[in-house]
Amino acid sequence: MPLEWSGSSPELLLVVDRNSGRPLRAQLEHGLREAIRTGRLAVGEKVPSSRELARTLGLSRGLVQECYAQLQAEGYLVTRPGSATRVAAGAAAPPVAARPRPDTGRLVADFRWGVPDLSSFPVEDWLRAQREAARGMATVEFDYGDPRGSAALREVLAGYLRRVRAAVADPEHIVVCNGYAQGLGLALRVLADGGLDTVAFEDPGSPATVGAAAAAAGLRPVPVPVDEHGIDVAALAATGARAVVVTPAHQWPTGVALAPERRLALVEWARDRDAIVIEDDYDAEFRYDREPVGALQGLAPDRVIALGTVSKSLAPALRIGWMVCPPELVAPLTALKHRLDRGTPTLDQVALARLIESGRFDRHLRRMRAGYAARRGTLLAALAEHAPGLPVTGLAAGFHAVAQLPAGVDEQLVVAAARARSVGLYGMATCRAARAGAPAQLVLGFGNVGERAIRAGIAAVGDLLLGRA
Amino acid sequence: MPLEWSGSSPELLLVVDRNSGRPLRAQLEHGLREAIRTGRLAVGEKVPSSRELARTLGLSRGLVQECYAQLQAEGYLVTRPGSATRVAAGAAAPPVAARPRPDTGRLVADFRWGVPDLSSFPVEDWLRAQREAARGMATVEFDYGDPRGSAALREVLAGYLRRVRAAVADPEHIVVCNGYAQGLGLALRVLADGGLDTVAFEDPGSPATVGAAAAAAGLRPVPVPVDEHGIDVAALAATGARAVVVTPAHQWPTGVALAPERRLALVEWARDRDAIVIEDDYDAEFRYDREPVGALQGLAPDRVIALGTVSKSLAPALRIGWMVCPPELVAPLTALKHRLDRGTPTLDQVALARLIESGRFDRHLRRMRAGYAARRGTLLAALAEHAPGLPVTGLAAGFHAVAQLPAGVDEQLVVAAARARSVGLYGMATCRAARAGAPAQLVLGFGNVGERAIRAGIAAVGDLLLGRA
Repeated sequence: MPLEWSGSSPELLLVVDRNSGRPLRAQLEHGLREAIRTGRLAVGEKVPSSRELARTLGLSRGLVQECYAQLQAEGYLVTRPGSATRVAAGAAAPPVAARPRPDTGRLVADFRWGVPDLSSFPVEDWLRAQREAARGMATVEFDYGDPRGSAALREVLAGYLRRVRAAVADPEHIVVCNGYAQGLGLALRVLADGGLDTVAFEDPGSPATVGAAAAAAGLRPVPVPVDEHGIDVAALAATGARAVVVTPAHQWPTGVALAPERRLALVEWARDRDAIVIEDDYDAEFRYDREPVGALQGLAPDRVIALGTVSKSLAPALRIGWMVCPPELVAPLTALKHRLDRGTPTLDQVALARLIESGRFDRHLRRMRAGYAARRGTLLAALAEHAPGLPVTGLAAGFHAVAQLPAGVDEQLVVAAARARSVGLYGMATCRAARAGAPAQLVLGFGNVGERAIRAGIAAVGDLLLGRA
Repeated sequence: MPLEWSGSSPELLLVVDRNSGRPLRAQLEHGLREAIRTGRLAVGEKVPSSRELARTLGLSRGLVQECYAQLQAEGYLVTRPGSATRVAAGAAAPPVAARPRPDTGRLVADFRWGVPDLSSFPVEDWLRAQREAARGMATVEFDYGDPRGSAALREVLAGYLRRVRAAVADPEHIVVCNGYAQGLGLALRVLADGGLDTVAFEDPGSPATVGAAAAAAGLRPVPVPVDEHGIDVAALAATGARAVVVTPAHQWPTGVALAPERRLALVEWARDRDAIVIEDDYDAEFRYDREPVGALQGLAPDRVIALGTVSKSLAPALRIGWMVCPPELVAPLTALKHRLDRGTPTLDQVALARLIESGRFDRHLRRMRAGYAARRGTLLAALAEHAPGLPVTGLAAGFHAVAQLPAGVDEQLVVAAARARSVGLYGMATCRAARAGAPAQLVLGFGNVGERAIRAGIAAVGDLLLGRA
């Protein structure tokens, strides 16, 4: 039979059940903690002596004392010499504030770009990798580490990037960082410290992200147009900039691959101008039609900082990225990373190393590639049915497409009208630095939208996409 | 019997054993990967057709094809339409560079400060918390999150800091960061953006850390002397600074607690000058003699940014810290955190929340407190035996002590002589901004030194500490 204690209170305060299978100490601790958190035991209230409670509940006094000591350590109880143990001030739970729910919960489909399929994060693979990492780590690895990152991860990444991205990757020249945004910030700051004053970026591209990082580093951001062959290298040269941020494998957001002659021209530009190319290799993992284009970094490792991240391949929540750097930039980037945060969390790094090394990372990527390919097919089929003839491009890789709206259709009006029908659409405008005269386009992300939602969403807005609503 | 394939090679390339208990596919993948990594299968070399390998090894052809597809995804193999599958360029392991070993491996004892007992990191508790976190997280939590940090962790931290540190902590005003260094950097940058030009800091204290963060933020760092009651608030007022970094609970490195009247004077100074106090609550968890002094933040939540970290309580490798902020600083700190790295890794945050909530964090702290108290006792006993009469202070909390060297003894000479005897000692000089005329002192860290090493180390340098060598 469960034994109970209710003190002087009319309510039941504590129940300990010997037959529940849970250790008695855990039951007692949990019961006391909950009684305090929920206010059933009020702040300042005396708790019974360990002797009294032990007798009432049929427990040993030592066990009750151990519980009280633990709850004192946690700040729930206070003991003063020569006085009773009481519930500590501030121990009760605060009123819970209502948290805003993301708006997307109410949408039929949300074609927000830049988000992978979050429901497919390989939780068990990741936990297994964490286990292998934590249990295998040497004691010294729990200290502050090399600010460049774990040697284990840098070695695994170097091998992986050499094989999969044809990069020229030496573990000594890799700096692990907390995702792409931090990598970009580090790179721009070091280039500014090195005397640069301008950074060019692709238009369309990521004007907000590059602009914010450039401003923080004291650099002037200048847009350079992208055409069907990728960034216009002649226009880049005309800006006088000595640094540029590019997405050569699958241009963000147009989806074109940088043409072979442009790749060579870009490398030549960097060599001629003593310039640095920041290569954002943002979705190299997901290419459908053919072998991925190798990283530009492989052509000019002395001129390119290649930035990678697991935000698309695993999940943004992990916050792990890397920079493959020209040798002379390793020292300043490492010093800056050290000053900013002393390095990226080590256990997560070693877990990622284990995940890649075990082959489970690639197994996950293959599953994801198949899943994204299916969603891509569903999107194209739904568009063919509900918006026949709509030109859609940029689908060779990744998980977004660009839809060209008919002449005379206003991008923002379509976005607003779709929202009124509970469909999240996103215009190209936020990706543009120069918006005047730009064609009306949508960037349709399908990474985190299920096939059923894709069909329902496109069915609901097909007429809008054709300018017929 | 294991089945083998050696191709045209005289060496054995692959073995698959049906009785080993390991899945055949895993054996084959592993074998192929290792053959390529070690160079037994050379770059460019043809691998057998899936039909041939399946026959030789007695496996199904589908299984071999699946392995080849996986290794192609991992970049070990390349397949071109109409041509044989070959070992990919860059697939072999690079020559392994010799990694420098930390010097400390050869020391009898290393009294380096600032390092907790790394061998006691609660690996299994942390993995359990990671499991509970990852399995319990909603899909949307794998996306980019609130740049302030996980709501779950902020709620748990707020409750914990209210109870254990008497802080006035609202989850809405907490910003989670990647350890103390990042928190300090964020705080100084936001204060500089708000118009401040100077930041004061304790002397002795952390001139290098504060100096680097101040320089990066464009602030002038000014030292303020510490006496036996803590920071000299009158001297602080005389600097004209409107921000100060302090360690009120256990001054770093002298170990004094900020006296009650000084605490009040500091708060009054902040109110009078419209100033901000950055409170580094660096080792509040480990106090031996009495209840910890409450956080200064509890006295003036509108004037204090309280910085905390798990680097001392768990391990530096986790890189998790927090800032409890005055309400009006939450928005700029959040915006800056978002720009810098988009937020701290979510899984680690939720795991920390689970660890605290379950009581396992405090159980760990209680174990550690007992362990550090034992090391502290051993240190005092060893000093009493081998350096009798040496004044030692600052031992009320934490895991370091300050030893006062006799008049006329040179701090750096003692450090060098100890090193020649394979004992790591560290002088107070690196903690000082104003070194002229300062007394010769050592900061003896004992957090990561075992009791046997403490005894051996002190036995080896006792005469040096007394200036008798």
